[in-house]
Parts: sequence; structure tokens; C-alpha cells
Amino acid sequence: MDNIQSTYKNSMALLTDFYEITMAYGFWKNEMHQQKAAFNLFFRNNPFSGGFSIACGLEYVVDFLNHFSFTDSDIDYLASLNGNDGKPLFEKGFLDYLQHMTFECDVEAIPEGTIVFPNEPLIKVKGPLLQCQLIESALLNFINFQTLIATKAARISIAAKGDPVMEFGLRRAQGIDGSLSASRASFIGGCAGTSNVLAGKKFNIPVLGTHAHSWVQAFEDELKAFDAFANTLPNNTIFLVDTYNTPRGIDKAIEITKKMETRGHKINGIRLDSGDLAYFSQLARGKLREAGLSHVKIVASNDLDEHLVASLKDQEAEIDSWGIGTKLVTAYDQPALGGVYKLSAIENKNGEWENRIKLSEQSIKINIPGLQQVKRFYKDGKMAGDMIFDERTDLSGTVRMIDPADPTRSKKLNKEELTCEDLLKPVFCKGQCVYEKESIQKLQERTSAQLNLLDKTIKRFANPHRYPVGLEEGLYQRRLDLILKYKQESE
Amino acid sequence: MDNIQSTYKNSMALLTDFYEITMAYGFWKNEMHQQKAAFNLFFRNNPFSGGFSIACGLEYVVDFLNHFSFTDSDIDYLASLNGNDGKPLFEKGFLDYLQHMTFECDVEAIPEGTIVFPNEPLIKVKGPLLQCQLIESALLNFINFQTLIATKAARISIAAKGDPVMEFGLRRAQGIDGSLSASRASFIGGCAGTSNVLAGKKFNIPVLGTHAHSWVQAFEDELKAFDAFANTLPNNTIFLVDTYNTPRGIDKAIEITKKMETRGHKINGIRLDSGDLAYFSQLARGKLREAGLSHVKIVASNDLDEHLVASLKDQEAEIDSWGIGTKLVTAYDQPALGGVYKLSAIENKNGEWENRIKLSEQSIKINIPGLQQVKRFYKDGKMAGDMIFDERTDLSGTVRMIDPADPTRSKKLNKEELTCEDLLKPVFCKGQCVYEKESIQKLQERTSAQLNLLDKTIKRFANPHRYPVGLEEGLYQRRLDLILKYKQESE
Repeated sequence: MDNIQSTYKNSMALLTDFYEITMAYGFWKNEMHQQKAAFNLFFRNNPFSGGFSIACGLEYVVDFLNHFSFTDSDIDYLASLNGNDGKPLFEKGFLDYLQHMTFECDVEAIPEGTIVFPNEPLIKVKGPLLQCQLIESALLNFINFQTLIATKAARISIAAKGDPVMEFGLRRAQGIDGSLSASRASFIGGCAGTSNVLAGKKFNIPVLGTHAHSWVQAFEDELKAFDAFANTLPNNTIFLVDTYNTPRGIDKAIEITKKMETRGHKINGIRLDSGDLAYFSQLARGKLREAGLSHVKIVASNDLDEHLVASLKDQEAEIDSWGIGTKLVTAYDQPALGGVYKLSAIENKNGEWENRIKLSEQSIKINIPGLQQVKRFYKDGKMAGDMIFDERTDLSGTVRMIDPADPTRSKKLNKEELTCEDLLKPVFCKGQCVYEKESIQKLQERTSAQLNLLDKTIKRFANPHRYPVGLEEGLYQRRLDLILKYKQESE
Repeated sequence: MDNIQSTYKNSMALLTDFYEITMAYGFWKNEMHQQKAAFNLFFRNNPFSGGFSIACGLEYVVDFLNHFSFTDSDIDYLASLNGNDGKPLFEKGFLDYLQHMTFECDVEAIPEGTIVFPNEPLIKVKGPLLQCQLIESALLNFINFQTLIATKAARISIAAKGDPVMEFGLRRAQGIDGSLSASRASFIGGCAGTSNVLAGKKFNIPVLGTHAHSWVQAFEDELKAFDAFANTLPNNTIFLVDTYNTPRGIDKAIEITKKMETRGHKINGIRLDSGDLAYFSQLARGKLREAGLSHVKIVASNDLDEHLVASLKDQEAEIDSWGIGTKLVTAYDQPALGGVYKLSAIENKNGEWENRIKLSEQSIKINIPGLQQVKRFYKDGKMAGDMIFDERTDLSGTVRMIDPADPTRSKKLNKEELTCEDLLKPVFCKGQCVYEKESIQKLQERTSAQLNLLDKTIKRFANPHRYPVGLEEGLYQRRLDLILKYKQESE
């Protein structure tokens, strides 16, 4: 298995927004660079108007942080940048500091493949203010995109009700990593494989594919094209039947399939890539059955997403497996998650943590202060609710959690009656990696197991039931006090 | 300036859909691998319901093809893949062939920064069938995404009417290249710079940025935060004024700006990142004017796209420059271009080119056959129409072009009266690169110059006028004959 740093030659430390570096300089100039701070990475809404999300992208974060350093060439580049007076932006002392800095932060994260919800910290970073700040943009890039795609893949897998879903998105993906990390996240979310050979090699994902229309076009006629393909790869044949006329294409595929079967080969299936997939799949299934080829699979593709898959299932389309490209790898109906990374606490000169928030005209944008952890409660083998709390709070006895969006919605939780676990796990301790790499198959299994713990009303696509996520009541109160204090001060 | 191959350690030859490799194997097994074929890369609709697109991504294509080869490790990986009978998919002879193959194709392309339209070949590849096929997926990945983003950036720049537009999308981009190649394409499309430091370094694009909310939160109060920032980077200061209360934030920014100006520093501006941007920008402009600071710029950001920028302009918002993130780098309202790569001709055993098409239930999906070139006509200093023709056709005298979507729409073109040029330029000749690299500034200038040649009715967002693109009448007729022939044969 491969990782990003072995893919990229460059140091990735410059994969950051420029303001992270100007702020780092500011913290250094103002002797605040070693002041300890805590940041949380979280999102505010589940994507696709859905009821849940699947955490993904942590392995990229770990790899990035394990190799976080500025090269000579990075430093030279920063030294070359000037301000509006034509003078260099950064002092040499700062650039020396950057170049010799070693990563010292504590990082906790919710493991990949875990079901997560809005406002929960997927990653918590605690350490020198300057370092917490510098890594913001890269962490957001990795987690936002991969969480989005793993969630989309999980939704499509739910719609496919156990049928294999194959990710075919390379040609429409947003750049090279837009394809590679989408293949990875799609597999973690539930896909059976990818068409992307490099992703298959890098991430140990099954690669799938047979032929395109151009194969058929390159021959004088379709029958000869099918015959030649089956003879070339009798152990990996799926006939694409819609180059000229779908019903005729199905007939020709059946003719060659029968011939190959008499020679002892097993043809995998036929693929439909245009037209009315419900109609053509039923037509194909009937023709295959008549020909005694009921075991031959029917694969469908053509701009599908979870809603079209669900609709085809409703129409009793005779489709056995699904090829999904564009709509999966770009998360077409919502191509960005919108996760953010916010300062929630900072240590003062006496070594005490002070809670911090950012106000906003929109109350949903006001973040949660403190040093957060998430406790997940289970009841009768199902997920029952998640509570965001401050790690310094004593939680013995009964606790109450309050919905920050609707304080009249609260829930009493008795830890004696419920099982529970903390979701954020240590990943780096004082800059040392303590993360144990998991196989991608393990991550896929986690997603699948977690989805089984979630009530089906939360998994449905239309108006899903809202899973209870609240703030521990003390944290809820401290947040409210802080909002009122800042609002008063800035009046 | 940097390129993809210097970014990636791996060979990129496996950045392909698996069916390209199984087809390559099929061509090799059937001794068709050296048969000459012609493929075109084109898209079927302008993105964003717009009237034009900006070609982008060619430099990635050139770089990819210049380094196109399979490493030992790639070959070992392919050798490890088995079929449904547990036996290896590929013969050793084929893998040896792949490993020792050198790129031999002719490639022509429309230069980056050129305005392009549906059905026009952005890239034409002519060469051994096997090689044409293997490179399909990577070419589509590069061109689809960068053309999409350059077009989005051009639209936003049009809406901004000359104001600088800055690309801020790293944190929401789809993976690492989703950010890097979006920064590149955004600059080519018209953006003034990027927040992405690595993109700035790699592509020689100006990097921009000052501070985030976390800077303000890290201080006891906003005034101290502004004061500290301005003193740190007096030559690169834009105050973000909405951490707690926007009108108070503006007042504090003005207080510090005045202080810095008396010391001889020039503060660049203030930034609004939430709330009613029209209202707050007018409020800020009034306050700045009163304070004698009319020269201080107002920057706005917050999920903007071309439509919001246009709306804010209509409302006479007092905004001088624009920070655009998510909606630009993900092309949020249409995150994929949908370009395709289709076989259009193949050489038969007698060395004659035969035209090829693929039929479809939807007539828009039937491709154009032949060895295509695009001629652009100009009249009175404006673009007047594009004609797709077969490079083997004699075009002396008057020519007529026909709209393939509506054959009653045709246009006579007199080459004596009009100036014209061929858009596809040689990039590789028999596998040798003949492409001359252009600076990214040059590519941006081309976009800007080309947009000046395009009538404003075609550039508008709502129901743009359709720019005339037709097939030379002989090509139109040959395509029609071919459609009828295939339809008859497959009845």
C-alpha cells in the first residue's frame, strides 16, 4: 500500500493557504507561536440532504503530518515574496524557524469509516498556535473531499441493496487526486472496485473493466468485435451491447456467450450504457433466460447516482451490478462538504485554557468552544445518540445533552443503562505518530458495520430522521455565556 | 515552472481505466495494435448553460505524453491480475510489448486559453490503435477538469467587470490536484492570483492572503489583533472585520489603518466574509470615505459565484476585489464537463482511412467521423463562426457549413471576404513533442484577448446567443450517410 508522500516528489508543506503563513509569521513576530491552542475540524450539515456522513481521509492527514517540513526550495520561494512596498514579506529569522521546526502537536481523530454527524470534531489538533494554524488548509482539503465521497458511495451502496457498485469516474474526476482519492473513498464507502488502475495499485483496490465502444467500432461488425474480445480475455469478458442497436447487441452477445460456454469459459456479463436501462435490462434478462444463460450478469452504467439506482430498483430493473462514474467521484449534486477548522480554546499566560468562539450573523456558523470529545451511546445494539462534551468535564452519573440548534430538544443519558464509547482516538502525541494503519478492507468493513448500527429512518434519502447530537449541558451553557459576552462587548 | 511529472514520483501510465489495458491486450492479440486510428476529444455542451468554453489542460497532456512509459513495478502489478478462472489476465509477451513501447502518435490540439465550443475536437490523436486507446482516460481527466474551471473563472471575471478575482479554494477542492490544477486553470481563465502557496510556487501565480478569524480569536480583543497584524506585515495587510460584529470591526480596522498611514505604511484593505455584502460594503465605503481613506480597498468573499458577483455589481456594492473559493474550484453548479474521446476513423488493410461513428438513442451523442480540423472565421474583428471539416477536403472557393443539430441552419462562408485560421496545432509528430511551452501569463492573455473577439450576446449568462459552429457540408453529408448505413445494418 502506498501513500501521498510516496506519490509526490515535492514537500507538501506549501499545500496551504497563504494566510496560514502570514499568520504564522505574525504569531512568531508577536511571540505567540508557542502558545498552546486547540482547533477542531468539523462540518455543519450532512451532504446531499442526508442523515449521516462517513469519516474519511485520515490516512492522508497522517501521511501529510508525518512528512511535514519545509524544503530549501520552499524556503527560497517564501523568501522571494514581497509586499506592496517591494520589500520581502518575511524576515530570515522566521524562515529559519519554519525550516527547523518539528511537528509537536497532539492530534485526535475519529477513525475512517465511522459514521459522523454535523458539529462533531472529526479531528482535534492541540499544540503550538503556529503549527495548528499552518496545517489547516491541507487537513480540510483531505477530509472534506474524502468524507464527501465516502458518504456518496455509502448512499449509492444503500440504494443498490447489496449489488456490487463499481467506481468508474477517472475521466470526469477533478484532477489526478480527484480521481485517486475518490477511488479510495468510494471503496471505503462501500464500492466493490474501481476502473482506475493506478488507484488499484496504490490502494490495493480491485480493478475492473473490459471494453468500450471504440473496441466495437474498430472492427467491421459487432459480432466479430465480441468474438475477438471473448477469445482474448475469456476470463474477463463483459460485452458492451449499445454501440449500434441495443437489442441486436444483446443477441450478438448471447451468440458469442453460448459459443464460449461450450468451450468451457464463463462470460461475466453484458453492459448497458445508454437508453432506458429498466426496459433494456428486462429485455436482456428475458433473452438471457431463454438462451439458458440466467447466470450471466447485467451491468448498467450511464450517469447514475443513488436516486437513479433506487428508481431502477423500484422499477424492478434486472440489473446485477452498477458502474458509477461522474456523479460519484465529483459528488455531483453537492461537490463540496464545507468542513471548517476553528479555534476553540487557547492557553493564557497562566497556563489555563480559555474558551474561544467566532460569532456570525448566522447562528449555525457559531462554533463550539473548549477541548472537545464525542461520546457515542448505544441502545439495543443501535446507535442512540452522540454527545459533544469538554474532555475536562466529569461525566459520572446521569448527563443531559442539549441540541444547540433547538435548546428545547434535550435528552437525559444514563451511562449505567447505555453502552458508550469516545469517538476521537489519539493519532499524534506531542508530534509522534501513534496511528496504526488499517487495511482499506478493514475501513470498508467498518463503514458497513456502522451502517448496520444506524436506524433505517436515518439512512433514507427523503427527509431522513435527525440523529440526536447534543452538547453536554455544561458545555451548552458555557457556549451560550460566551456568545452573550462577545455580543455585549461588541455592541 | 513545474509540471506534473516532476510532482509525481510514480509513472503515470497506470492513470487509466482498466478497460483501456484489456482493449490494448485485445488489439495486440488480434494483431491490430499497429493499425492506425484517429480519436477526437470533445465535449457536447458548454458548461453552466453558457455560450462558450475556454480550452485548458494541454500542458498536463504534453507532460503526461512526454513521460508515457510503464515501470517495472507497473508491469509487475499488471502481471499480478487474474481473471474469473484464477489465471493471469495478460500474457508476458504483451506486458513486454507495453514496457518497451515508445509513443508514436501524432497529436494536435487547440492551444490553452482559446475559446472553444461543443463538438470541436480540442485534441486529435492519430497513431497506433493501441496507443491512442491507452491514453484516453488521462487526457479526459486533464482536459475535462481544467477546461471546466478555466471557463468558470472566465465567467466570474466577466461578472467582476475588471475587478481582480482571487482564487481561494484549496480547502474545499477535490483532492490535491483538484486544488493545484484548479489554481492553474483559474489563473488562465482570468483570476489575478491564488491563496494556494504550492500552486503559486509550481505555476508562477501570485499568491495572496492575510489573516483568518482565528488570528482575531487568538487575541484578547479585535483591536489588538488588528494592531499586531498591521505591525507584523504593514506591506500586506487586509483586515478581516467580521469575527464578532462587522460595523465595529470596520471601525477598528479604520483606527489601525489611520495609525499605520501616519507612519507611512499603505494598508491594502478590509475583507467582508459574511452577512449582507452589498449593505456592509456600502457601510464600509462610507466609513472609509469619512475617515479620508477612500483609497483603501474592500474585498468580499463568502460562497460567491458569477451570479452573486453580478448581483452585487447590480446592487452597486462597494467591492473592489473578490475572493472566490468553493464555487470556482469545484465548478459547484456543474462539477464535470462531460468531455469524451471517440474513434472517428481507422485505416484499413489497404492503408485507406475509413470513417467511423457510434450510434446512440440520443442523436446528440452520435459523434462526427473523419480526420477533423476546425477553421475559425473572423469578420470585422469579431469571431464569426467555426467550421469543423475533414483535413482531406479541398476548401478552395466558397464553402457552406451546416448545423448538425438543425440542418436547416446553414451558413455560406467566403474565404476571400473573411479571415480565418485553423485551430488545431501540432503538439506531437510521430511521438516527438513539437509543443512550445507558453508562460501562464501568456495563456491568461490569450483568454482575455479571445473574450474580446466574442460578441457580448454570447458571453451573457442567461440564454446566451448560440455561436455558429457547423460541419463542412461534405462532412455533414458523409456523417448522415454513415448514420443511415449503420441504422439499416442493425435493423
